[in-house]
Amino acid sequence: MKTFVYLVLLIVCSCMAAGAAVAGIPVAHPNIVLTTRDAALIRASLGRYPLFDAQYNELKSSVDKAIAQPIDVPIPVDAAGYTHGRHKQNYKDMYGAGLLYSITGEARYASFVRTMLLRYAMVYPTLGNHPAGNGPAPGRLFWQTLNEAVWLVNVAQAYDCVYEWIPAHERATIESQLLRPMATFFSVDHARELDRIHNHGTWTAAAVGMLGYAMRDQSLVDLALYGTRKDKTGGFFRQLDLLFSPDGFYLEGPYYMRYAMEPFYLFAQAVENNQPELHIFEYRDRLLKKAVYCGIQLTTSSGQFFPINDALKEKTYETPEFVIALDMAFRQYGADPALLGIARRQKSVMISGAGLTIARALSASGSAVMFPYASVEFTDGPDGERGGIGILRSGINEDQETLLMKYAGHGKEHGHFDALTFVFYDQNRDIVQDYGAARFLNVEQKFGGRYLPETQSYARQTIAHNTVTVDERSQHDANQDAADEHSAVRHFFSTEDPAFQIMSAVDSGSTSGVWMQRTMAMVTDTRLRKPVVIDIVRIVSAAEHQYDLPFYYLGQLIGTNVSLKAHDTEQHPMGTSNGYQHLWNEAEGTASGTVRISWLAGARYYSLLSAADSNTTVYCTRIGANDPNFNLRHDPGVMLRTHGPTATFASVLEPHGVWDGTMEISEDAYPNMTGVRVAASTSEGTVVDITGKGGLHWVMMVTHRAASATARHTIAAHDTVYTWTGNAALKK
Amino acid sequence: MKTFVYLVLLIVCSCMAAGAAVAGIPVAHPNIVLTTRDAALIRASLGRYPLFDAQYNELKSSVDKAIAQPIDVPIPVDAAGYTHGRHKQNYKDMYGAGLLYSITGEARYASFVRTMLLRYAMVYPTLGNHPAGNGPAPGRLFWQTLNEAVWLVNVAQAYDCVYEWIPAHERATIESQLLRPMATFFSVDHARELDRIHNHGTWTAAAVGMLGYAMRDQSLVDLALYGTRKDKTGGFFRQLDLLFSPDGFYLEGPYYMRYAMEPFYLFAQAVENNQPELHIFEYRDRLLKKAVYCGIQLTTSSGQFFPINDALKEKTYETPEFVIALDMAFRQYGADPALLGIARRQKSVMISGAGLTIARALSASGSAVMFPYASVEFTDGPDGERGGIGILRSGINEDQETLLMKYAGHGKEHGHFDALTFVFYDQNRDIVQDYGAARFLNVEQKFGGRYLPETQSYARQTIAHNTVTVDERSQHDANQDAADEHSAVRHFFSTEDPAFQIMSAVDSGSTSGVWMQRTMAMVTDTRLRKPVVIDIVRIVSAAEHQYDLPFYYLGQLIGTNVSLKAHDTEQHPMGTSNGYQHLWNEAEGTASGTVRISWLAGARYYSLLSAADSNTTVYCTRIGANDPNFNLRHDPGVMLRTHGPTATFASVLEPHGVWDGTMEISEDAYPNMTGVRVAASTSEGTVVDITGKGGLHWVMMVTHRAASATARHTIAAHDTVYTWTGNAALKK
Repeated sequence: MKTFVYLVLLIVCSCMAAGAAVAGIPVAHPNIVLTTRDAALIRASLGRYPLFDAQYNELKSSVDKAIAQPIDVPIPVDAAGYTHGRHKQNYKDMYGAGLLYSITGEARYASFVRTMLLRYAMVYPTLGNHPAGNGPAPGRLFWQTLNEAVWLVNVAQAYDCVYEWIPAHERATIESQLLRPMATFFSVDHARELDRIHNHGTWTAAAVGMLGYAMRDQSLVDLALYGTRKDKTGGFFRQLDLLFSPDGFYLEGPYYMRYAMEPFYLFAQAVENNQPELHIFEYRDRLLKKAVYCGIQLTTSSGQFFPINDALKEKTYETPEFVIALDMAFRQYGADPALLGIARRQKSVMISGAGLTIARALSASGSAVMFPYASVEFTDGPDGERGGIGILRSGINEDQETLLMKYAGHGKEHGHFDALTFVFYDQNRDIVQDYGAARFLNVEQKFGGRYLPETQSYARQTIAHNTVTVDERSQHDANQDAADEHSAVRHFFSTEDPAFQIMSAVDSGSTSGVWMQRTMAMVTDTRLRKPVVIDIVRIVSAAEHQYDLPFYYLGQLIGTNVSLKAHDTEQHPMGTSNGYQHLWNEAEGTASGTVRISWLAGARYYSLLSAADSNTTVYCTRIGANDPNFNLRHDPGVMLRTHGPTATFASVLEPHGVWDGTMEISEDAYPNMTGVRVAASTSEGTVVDITGKGGLHWVMMVTHRAASATARHTIAAHDTVYTWTGNAALKK
Repeated sequence: MKTFVYLVLLIVCSCMAAGAAVAGIPVAHPNIVLTTRDAALIRASLGRYPLFDAQYNELKSSVDKAIAQPIDVPIPVDAAGYTHGRHKQNYKDMYGAGLLYSITGEARYASFVRTMLLRYAMVYPTLGNHPAGNGPAPGRLFWQTLNEAVWLVNVAQAYDCVYEWIPAHERATIESQLLRPMATFFSVDHARELDRIHNHGTWTAAAVGMLGYAMRDQSLVDLALYGTRKDKTGGFFRQLDLLFSPDGFYLEGPYYMRYAMEPFYLFAQAVENNQPELHIFEYRDRLLKKAVYCGIQLTTSSGQFFPINDALKEKTYETPEFVIALDMAFRQYGADPALLGIARRQKSVMISGAGLTIARALSASGSAVMFPYASVEFTDGPDGERGGIGILRSGINEDQETLLMKYAGHGKEHGHFDALTFVFYDQNRDIVQDYGAARFLNVEQKFGGRYLPETQSYARQTIAHNTVTVDERSQHDANQDAADEHSAVRHFFSTEDPAFQIMSAVDSGSTSGVWMQRTMAMVTDTRLRKPVVIDIVRIVSAAEHQYDLPFYYLGQLIGTNVSLKAHDTEQHPMGTSNGYQHLWNEAEGTASGTVRISWLAGARYYSLLSAADSNTTVYCTRIGANDPNFNLRHDPGVMLRTHGPTATFASVLEPHGVWDGTMEISEDAYPNMTGVRVAASTSEGTVVDITGKGGLHWVMMVTHRAASATARHTIAAHDTVYTWTGNAALKK
């Protein structure tokens, strides 16, 4: 029965997609994203699909309200205040009114767009650079060209919708005073932006290209597709080539991927509608399809994008830009029922043919299929050879342990110096967190809603991450260009054995003369309620260094076996630069044997057990020093510090027990694991001995040689000879 | 139609309640809480009411599992570890098995209770005081007698259920070796506990009394009802007289009220079933009914008990003890549909006649009526003359502004030195919080799950609350006996005008020679999206003092007009004692004019605007200094400090705007209010002048004379004469 429903859907979808543009038939406006045919379909479908109707009514009520108000096209003043918000609202209103005109045919919507465009045509020629512009690419309506490109992506569509309604002489005014100057501004004044291999570049290319289609100006379209030199050294195709790995992973990371999906998909649809012979949706082996699926896998099972690089943690797949991508992928690439579960949680669809398609599928499907979150690796780099991201998962979506390790490329301007960092989630919450970026989006009091200085001084620095900082200096000394040249290297990634999922990567260029390999495994054992994480970092250098490995746990510290000296009557920062100046030293102690730190988060306990010797100092830190404007979250951390030319950090992270304050339940507040010891660590491999209650005894072995499934390894340590075949083994 | 349904319910309930016990008819076991008649009713109703069935099946599966395991009655060792948990689980298992025997008649359940009781009868006589007991009332099975009384409340019911099944000679063993010694332990060795006016007293009285009914020992029952001297100087009736105000407010506060409701209701039901002539449920004008309704009003609209006095903030009306009270109140006092909404959110019912009644009502009612959360005042003290608690509310349950001011009595051992403190909620979250208690319930690593030392050194101290601390010393110098002698005094409480709800109270004994009156209003204005709070504290003394008024806001500070000097490279505590030693001084600044502090919490902005002069210093604080064991939450606060014989703090707390990071929406990030100025403050009254954007201008006037609705007040200040009639007025 279900199969039948999906079959029908598939057929309907294919027809709708195929119907969009057929070579040889002259196309009428609109035909960028919304087509005349889709508009007619929508008109005929209103009242039938609840989610689409709800969205449509919301749009209509918002546009009707806008139309009833006087139009305001203010002279730009601020970066997050009234004028910023007004120009943003204006493009949303024009876009909405354009759609409504195409669907309903009511002239008042077209008239609204026309009048506002004429107002912009009066104001735009008088504008110089935005007064609050402070970067290399100031806009005119907005403080940066990015927002201006977003404006145009929306307005090009609005213009396309009402094009035929506007008298030719007014179109001439609008184009000559507003749209063409704006196209010139982007493609000449800011040619660098359009050609740039960056999300800003794609927004700019999409804006110019979509405007080109709206104005039937193929020359503008070609600039957008092939770059300002029209030779494919910039522009949309180049961006498709270089911004994504063959797996669909986006160079800047999940946060900007989410944002870039909107112009990639919208412009691709415009290309498909107008130049179907380019087969844009098939490009690079259906790259755009892979990108959407990759994007979803790069969220926690509750939908939060992993906060890799500059990222705001409140962003989920419910953001409007990802709704667009999902709806269009669903229609374009076959109606995959796995996407419907996401769509249902988005509670929102595009007002477009794609939105209609998915809303119809949603109303036809009963219970949604859950998206199959999986353990998966994504390579980075155009050829997939710039490291990647490894994700290990265990458990149902509602309560999933998720472990991510980053060994991807740096990620350009928004990159963090954090090779071999990790994040760990459980209970749909951060257990060992990545800070994300220091930014309060759109909050005017916080530096106009832009990135705060603490993004650079703290959030991007190595010490802000759950990876090793060498000698209190960030990787590449926080030099972006150097970092972009480099990436960590995947060693191996294996999820063949669901009870012993494992990934490993090597970084040998982030700090000159220091080689390190991190191996992380997710291990299931019937004696334990939940899988545990094993974490082994081996560091090799010829020279003496200080190695700091922090774990930014979230929760309340409930116990440790480290005898801590608390700095609780006078507190100082951990250092003076490279992010250390932002960490208070709350307490420190010397460890010996196995360090145990336990905390409580939500309904569960977590313990970190780390092998330590008398060389190891444990610090309890808190973010928030040197933060005069209260820009940082004052979150805790624990840091292991050791010294040596070589060092090995070996840890187990164990979720355990249950805590329920309402019902007064506390079980297994102590971890099952009791001991972690590095039995051997040589250039051949590392052996870690793990003991727990009830006679639990594991030996984890990992190679430091080249990856090979068949190589046999032998390490002799004291009285024991350890042997294993392949990259890693766990002896229970 | 709905009326009809409830009518039917009412009739059914009345019959069920009335059928419980009729004088003259000899009653069979069980007859304490579950009766033979209810057991038969339940048996006949299984499979008909989903919530009841779910609960029943859960109980059955848990008891069946317990029966399949070997019985363990360990020698007590710990306060929160295995032996503690085992004895707790044992009473739960016996209680459940007792119920199941009565309902199903299956001998294996009775046999399980019998066998375990015989095991206890062997162990109990060998026990001295519990090795982890550290208070004045150590138990034998548990570290404190309280837990032992809870054990017996459950076991008395279990024993009652299986009484007739156990052979007489085994009953003799169980009674002589376990139950009677335990009764003696409570009523002789710990007579003070049984007689105590305290929740421990009620648990003890209920345990002894219910055991008395189970063993048909009226002498024990009389001890429980009238005190160990049987003269009503202690015991259950005395507790009913002294622990509640005529409004049903419970002396120790909402947190312990929740906990005490269980023995109050269970024992009352036992009395009703066995001595109906005492009319216990009618006692003190249906006191127990009032208590349940008061208990609900003392939760936020999402069900969290206000954390007044020692309290753990995770406690909601979903706790099992409140489920019991609600179910029994529903059955006993007429099936009030308003309680069904709460019951639905509790997702749990008792396995009893009362649980059956409410489950049946739930399955008959379609959409639940929401509980009518209201602005309400509860008096404190047996005669209602020891101050009280004022609660002002505005908005629907889903997004309700709730303002609570405490001017009640101290509340005994668990009381906080916090007269005239307040708490403010919005969006179902703490906006200006009360710390609650420093305790991690049942977390063994945290001092065995008991109150942590920081409860006394910080959480109970005045400075931990949103009220004025004089000269860095807590009210009554933190002396409980002195505090219990005293209470603040209500001045007036008025919610007649929903747009100007107001409450006021006076404290004149907490600090010798210092009189203070706090007046808090919740004001609605069509020009504002949300109601704002006006807060006026006038302090009068003959001598010079330092006055500190903190606001423990929760959220991210986003802006202030105070020029702050941040202590962000070296940090010290705010003081050395009385709770100040636990506050880091993060920043300070001198204010002049109106102080503005804005923070972001959830989807909304909040701003505190306070009148200040050059005498006023503003401190940004953070909890967590002198906290070597990480027992405190490191939450922020802002503190206003001024000096003088007299002082007036006048503030406006304004919720404003919208923030949505997912959708990138930020509106009205600055407050509408711009100025707060004390225009006059004399012994007659205080006048506060409040200005806002768009010409908003309010004058708030409040009297410091005796409360009177008709008195006319006049204050001349500079060129203006302010006049008003009654206790307070707001001129817009």
